[in-house]
Amino acid sequence: MAVGAPRFPDLPSIAGFKTTATASGIKRHDMVDLLLVEMENTCSVAGVFTQNQVVAAPVEICRARLAVGRARALLVNSGNANARTGPQGMDDALALGKQCAELLGVPESEIFLASTGVIGERLPMEKPAAALPEMAKKLAPGGWQEAAQAIMTTDTFPKGARRSTSIEGASVEVIGIAKGAGMIHPDMATMLSFLFTDAAITQQALQTLLSRAIEESFNSISVDGDTSTNDTVLLFASGAAGHAVIDDPDSPEAAPLMEAILGVCLDLAQAIIRDAEGATKFVTITVSGAKSRADAKQVAFSVAKSPLVKTALFGSDPNWGRILCAVGYAKVPLDVDRIAIRLGDVTVVENGVLSPGYREKDGARVMGEEEIGISIDLGLGDASEQVWTSDLSHGYVTINADYRT
Amino acid sequence: MAVGAPRFPDLPSIAGFKTTATASGIKRHDMVDLLLVEMENTCSVAGVFTQNQVVAAPVEICRARLAVGRARALLVNSGNANARTGPQGMDDALALGKQCAELLGVPESEIFLASTGVIGERLPMEKPAAALPEMAKKLAPGGWQEAAQAIMTTDTFPKGARRSTSIEGASVEVIGIAKGAGMIHPDMATMLSFLFTDAAITQQALQTLLSRAIEESFNSISVDGDTSTNDTVLLFASGAAGHAVIDDPDSPEAAPLMEAILGVCLDLAQAIIRDAEGATKFVTITVSGAKSRADAKQVAFSVAKSPLVKTALFGSDPNWGRILCAVGYAKVPLDVDRIAIRLGDVTVVENGVLSPGYREKDGARVMGEEEIGISIDLGLGDASEQVWTSDLSHGYVTINADYRT
Repeated sequence: MAVGAPRFPDLPSIAGFKTTATASGIKRHDMVDLLLVEMENTCSVAGVFTQNQVVAAPVEICRARLAVGRARALLVNSGNANARTGPQGMDDALALGKQCAELLGVPESEIFLASTGVIGERLPMEKPAAALPEMAKKLAPGGWQEAAQAIMTTDTFPKGARRSTSIEGASVEVIGIAKGAGMIHPDMATMLSFLFTDAAITQQALQTLLSRAIEESFNSISVDGDTSTNDTVLLFASGAAGHAVIDDPDSPEAAPLMEAILGVCLDLAQAIIRDAEGATKFVTITVSGAKSRADAKQVAFSVAKSPLVKTALFGSDPNWGRILCAVGYAKVPLDVDRIAIRLGDVTVVENGVLSPGYREKDGARVMGEEEIGISIDLGLGDASEQVWTSDLSHGYVTINADYRT
Repeated sequence: MAVGAPRFPDLPSIAGFKTTATASGIKRHDMVDLLLVEMENTCSVAGVFTQNQVVAAPVEICRARLAVGRARALLVNSGNANARTGPQGMDDALALGKQCAELLGVPESEIFLASTGVIGERLPMEKPAAALPEMAKKLAPGGWQEAAQAIMTTDTFPKGARRSTSIEGASVEVIGIAKGAGMIHPDMATMLSFLFTDAAITQQALQTLLSRAIEESFNSISVDGDTSTNDTVLLFASGAAGHAVIDDPDSPEAAPLMEAILGVCLDLAQAIIRDAEGATKFVTITVSGAKSRADAKQVAFSVAKSPLVKTALFGSDPNWGRILCAVGYAKVPLDVDRIAIRLGDVTVVENGVLSPGYREKDGARVMGEEEIGISIDLGLGDASEQVWTSDLSHGYVTINADYRT
């Protein structure tokens, strides 16, 4: 049910990172469910996590370890979220981290952890614990596609992205993997993404770049408005590229790195929307003419989240009244008589009412496509924002009514 | 697809009100689509309208006429919302009101109007205009069930409610009709409701009572979070019951009237949820132990609106992790370790984690029922609130993907 599922990109090995993945048995059907990434030298690490107040144990551990911000390994499991499993869940996560630290001979505080899957059930500890010693022996450069597969839950394809750039003459790689697919909304929902770069940068500067990139990418997508307990984005920087260490996120040297990080985040965020649960449409919503970017984003999300707009998208119905209605309840000051709406290249609404030249068949043509652009001009200012969403289909209902069975 | 569709109640005629309804041809298939209510004497009238900034012409007219607050007639059409139809739409609505005023021999400013149906298409004026003269001749007491039918859109059953009370020895009736069924959310969505009473009360006092009742009824239900351009609740009071005019909404005389109005509003609001688009479950969400009623309501709506909770309800899946997750992103301060969740009579979560005594089959039994209670205790205070919602089913997607075809 994915929309234009992209081929997994050719992701190179990156100096300083080794990976391995295995089917440890947390998931059924011998599916790969455990990913270990080892970092040869201590990396700078930046992170952004769910804004949900109910968080999984690994999120709490990552937050604490980010205060120091040094990383030597990342361990991720899919199939079980290790969320709301009480003190036992925290003990389990800490024990897995400790085992990794011992196997790799690195400080426990430099192990980062993430989990995704069913909430509220205890992690079957014996399975990852039994798998880890063998995994530690198999670590090797590259392996990103298998890594992306190991973190999937309801995803239908693995998600990866890459940007290459150069900083002070040194060539620099940024690559990333991610998983969706439901509960996707700002504050990042059930979404995991891990980025790796050989750039040399301080933890503080890295955190600034990552936070900025996420605002324009992962926090600009919405599947269903739900946000989850486990969302995690981590960015590890090894420094192996060899240029002078960046410590100012606004310096000229940081600019190409920022662009590369944003590019990877955008590719991954859009891939998540293409693979949203039950998605049959990939929808770009652009709001322009707003008084502020915050206003523009609020209006865009009001439209992106409307179940009535999303079912109309599924039904290929150019129901512009629902779009205008969702603009109207966005709680942003409006002058309704200035609003214009376009579906693709077709002007549907001008001055807040149906455009005299609009013909239903033109709107229906656009709405029948797999990739749909909805443009809304508020006519009030110069600010604009873009968000991405999917439709609300029978597939979404089926997947989520039956998720645990 | 309605859940426990109630029989239309036996609604008596009320002194001072006459009704008539007809199939004017705005709707297809000769369905009744136009309702006229005449008030023998000038009524006090109170109203509450959509909070959407995009509003239909009749809503603008009602708001203006409420400033005076005297009513002699109500004209409602279904099948066309007369929303975003520009100056033409306003001219059309004004013309219909003027025609009513002339036919009934009452001031134009005392005609109230409402419309519901497709947005953005011009009202086919010739049809109601042709029907009105005949309707004016057929006005008669009672007729509430046909009145309720005339305002339906995707509703599957007409909705009516009644409370009888007594004020200073005079018997007083409050009756109401309503229509849903999609886009139901606080700020009232595509929802129309009209209440009629023979109580004697000033406009200001009536407005206070209506606003209070709506907060606890129509603003405590959610189908899909969308709010519409046309939502209107109007309450007309004829004074024919003959008791002294109530002018203080907090007086002892106002109390039984308040109770009756709230009772009618609650019945109608719950009937709308039972008839929500595609609904297969009627769900009562109770949040207790909150620091304030506002917090309780915010948490309740976060759960009521979650597509993941709603699809789990459709699938009869006791997926308590999704409920806890929706509590967590409600943006209300929480102590997660104090949260308790019950499904019906089954305790599922205690102290923020799975209750030791919980068995999945008990939760599954509750979730398999048509009427489901979800109780959430935040463990932080004494405030509580209740809201009502439905599940998110294949029926919802089907209805809304194909609404206009």
